[in-house]
Amino acid sequence: MSENPSSVIVVYSALQAFISRALQSVDIPADDANVVAGLMAQADLQGSDGHGVIRLPQYVKRIRAGGINTRPNIQVVQERAAMAIVDGDNAMGHLAVSRAVNLAIEKARTAGVAWVGTRNSNHAGPDSLYARMPVAHNMIGLYFAVGNANHLPAWGGMDMLLSTNPIAAAIPAGKEPEIVLDMATTVAAYGKVKAKAKRGEMMPEGWMIDRQGQPLLDPTRSEEGFLLPIGGYKGYGLALIVGLLAGTLQGAAMGKDVVDFNKDSVTPTNTGQAILAINLEAFGEVNVFKSAVDTLVQDIRASERLPGVDRVWLPGEQSHARRQAYGENGIPVAGALAKELEVLAKDLGVEPMQIN
Amino acid sequence: MSENPSSVIVVYSALQAFISRALQSVDIPADDANVVAGLMAQADLQGSDGHGVIRLPQYVKRIRAGGINTRPNIQVVQERAAMAIVDGDNAMGHLAVSRAVNLAIEKARTAGVAWVGTRNSNHAGPDSLYARMPVAHNMIGLYFAVGNANHLPAWGGMDMLLSTNPIAAAIPAGKEPEIVLDMATTVAAYGKVKAKAKRGEMMPEGWMIDRQGQPLLDPTRSEEGFLLPIGGYKGYGLALIVGLLAGTLQGAAMGKDVVDFNKDSVTPTNTGQAILAINLEAFGEVNVFKSAVDTLVQDIRASERLPGVDRVWLPGEQSHARRQAYGENGIPVAGALAKELEVLAKDLGVEPMQIN
Repeated sequence: MSENPSSVIVVYSALQAFISRALQSVDIPADDANVVAGLMAQADLQGSDGHGVIRLPQYVKRIRAGGINTRPNIQVVQERAAMAIVDGDNAMGHLAVSRAVNLAIEKARTAGVAWVGTRNSNHAGPDSLYARMPVAHNMIGLYFAVGNANHLPAWGGMDMLLSTNPIAAAIPAGKEPEIVLDMATTVAAYGKVKAKAKRGEMMPEGWMIDRQGQPLLDPTRSEEGFLLPIGGYKGYGLALIVGLLAGTLQGAAMGKDVVDFNKDSVTPTNTGQAILAINLEAFGEVNVFKSAVDTLVQDIRASERLPGVDRVWLPGEQSHARRQAYGENGIPVAGALAKELEVLAKDLGVEPMQIN
Repeated sequence: MSENPSSVIVVYSALQAFISRALQSVDIPADDANVVAGLMAQADLQGSDGHGVIRLPQYVKRIRAGGINTRPNIQVVQERAAMAIVDGDNAMGHLAVSRAVNLAIEKARTAGVAWVGTRNSNHAGPDSLYARMPVAHNMIGLYFAVGNANHLPAWGGMDMLLSTNPIAAAIPAGKEPEIVLDMATTVAAYGKVKAKAKRGEMMPEGWMIDRQGQPLLDPTRSEEGFLLPIGGYKGYGLALIVGLLAGTLQGAAMGKDVVDFNKDSVTPTNTGQAILAINLEAFGEVNVFKSAVDTLVQDIRASERLPGVDRVWLPGEQSHARRQAYGENGIPVAGALAKELEVLAKDLGVEPMQIN
């Protein structure tokens, strides 16, 4: 990230354009490539750099291996006034989920609330992107997803039947930035473990345990252990419920059926995601709600602080600040990643990413 | 609970009848008293003994002080195809929430999904009771509530602006018992702290911190500290989002407006709760879903176990076993509580609880 002296600066539009070129070169139609590239670049723009352009080489690998359908027929397969299931036809997850969120927003306009889920979808980037989409329509977004690899056993167990199944929520505010929570149900997301390994650092106690139930601190040994859920059995329960809501309910993969997309680039993942859009207008005066959120945000921010704490943050406030700063000054992309993307561009025969 | 040698055994119907008599003696109409008493007794039946008959003296105190409306006009004040707000008119929370859940079930029958929230409600007992109600209708229940006293600051803060705001979820299964999660977003619910104090025990590290941010272990000093959220900032985020969904969205109390019902028996609490009912029929074949849940449950239960672990439990499995055992053999009520209820019966001039 920005602290890295070897990082390069890329403006949002250049990042999006490069990703789109890359995706089009592997047979994604231009309109679809632009949508996916926009969402991936937005991930980097808000600092969700584990879910943005860093995933491009993996996506390209999967597309080339035939593990993604580049010409999908994304369609609604179940529908009622306040719900739908979108079958992604093994499309890029970004396309399937965008379709689901847009449909949920449409339905919530009249029904007040709407749930739309996906099946036969794929990894779609950071959950907060989708949870935030309803906010522009004066709606709350609640988002659930099944992770794309199982690293979490049931509490007390060792069979990795669960993923880090995340929850995201976005709540509109008035003058304040929206409140945006985006959290894995494990103490650490698996990406953070991989990042520690890359940097040659040890993990803190509480992230993982080994098969004896003892703390596992060496991230290069992560294959020998399991992630720990937040709050012990509570986080296990949350990961299970989120997986049932995002996966099983939509007829998507859950439990043993989850495909590890890091190890297998061919088998369709049948990923499931679900969005709940809640239309504030149906509940009363939108401005009254937003003012109440503003007051709460301000009360929290003005809170007396524990010794040594500089500031009390609201969920999403730091991403919000990054979106503004990176929008103005460009997005820092780690030097090593920039090099990898240069190689990828050559490999794909597309113009490389324009660096500022 | 059952381990207590001094506990007495009360059958469900006797417990319900006693609670109903007590509530009727303080002017709750018989029909309403029966509903509340049934839900309170069900709490004890499933072992949620911090939320059952143990609350009766507090409820009676509040009713006598005029803090509960015994003749409420509970009504729907906002409504669309897939949502409603029920104004509880300061009724016993059990009545307001039951009405909300029943309405959500009705709406989800046609709309597929429905959200119904309450305002001007009150403490309603264990969340799992309400999350489970849709299950009999082949629906998933998701339940959110604002706790009735703030014991949780924002992460890094010291102003107690948040409660233990719980989440409950109930997922229908086929041959297996339904999966039922019911969790506070704090490591320990405040009731557990009070129970430790009563038993003269120390709390484990991780439940509470003091105003220096140091572990607080002595539960008699709990007023000097704060509960800790699960997963640190993640649990803070969850408590915040749950409070916004269950409180602010419905126009119910949240943040500074939350009334501590342990300290104040008069001021209306304006408690908010919310249920989301998800109709499985709208999503596909109900039996296919239930079989998938059964398979997942069985995979989890058959999971290889960490050293020293006897059994891998599903959320709600232990409550389910208790409902069966206590239904057959009667419900254990702690001796001290039974005495307190005897005194209460005399005070109210009603026939005491029939003990087996």
